[in-house]
Amino acid sequence: MNLNPINFQDKFSRFDDLWSPKVIAEMNDYQFKLAKVEGEFVWHSHPDTDEVFLVLDGKLDIEFRDGRVSLAEGEMYVVPKGVEHKPVASEQCQILLIEPRGVVNTGAVEGKLTAPNDVWL
Amino acid sequence: MNLNPINFQDKFSRFDDLWSPKVIAEMNDYQFKLAKVEGEFVWHSHPDTDEVFLVLDGKLDIEFRDGRVSLAEGEMYVVPKGVEHKPVASEQCQILLIEPRGVVNTGAVEGKLTAPNDVWL
Repeated sequence: MNLNPINFQDKFSRFDDLWSPKVIAEMNDYQFKLAKVEGEFVWHSHPDTDEVFLVLDGKLDIEFRDGRVSLAEGEMYVVPKGVEHKPVASEQCQILLIEPRGVVNTGAVEGKLTAPNDVWL
Repeated sequence: MNLNPINFQDKFSRFDDLWSPKVIAEMNDYQFKLAKVEGEFVWHSHPDTDEVFLVLDGKLDIEFRDGRVSLAEGEMYVVPKGVEHKPVASEQCQILLIEPRGVVNTGAVEGKLTAPNDVWL
């Protein structure tokens, strides 16, 4: 059995690409993914699942069609299934995403910000 | 839609009982629970699910029958389904637990440390 802790800062030191979640752990059929984000993402939704954003460093806004939530370090938010959202970070921000295995970062909105899925660190 | 961030320190300020997880959020059928822990918990396992421990403040050891993992702030670990474990904190520690709704903190080992389930903050 692997007895090594998963250290977020160690994992973040291993990549620099933005908006490209890296899997660091699985719990049952859910994945824990780290991402560095900066600037505006694309509007998208995940029709089959909620999605958790947990801010580990910096600040992240999540815009909705009818409002926004502003997250700082030590805060999390659950984006409900099917709700359109657009993450925005005015400065670089480090986040932990938690969602079922197989979720694509841009939902059905494929484009230049669509990241390869299931990339492990 | 609720546009309030979930702030861990705000939530921790609302309770002081040890080894008694409080639900702060749900993602699909999974729950996010905060707990303050100190001292030794009981040996137990969860036969049907993995369990995530994420340390938000302090240090936590998770003992296994054949070893242990030591977690500090900013570290997490996934205890595999069915594996006996005993969390131990030499000083008070603040943790985030992630697991399916309905998981009892002591598994099948009911006792004085068995906490009421599904208590929301």
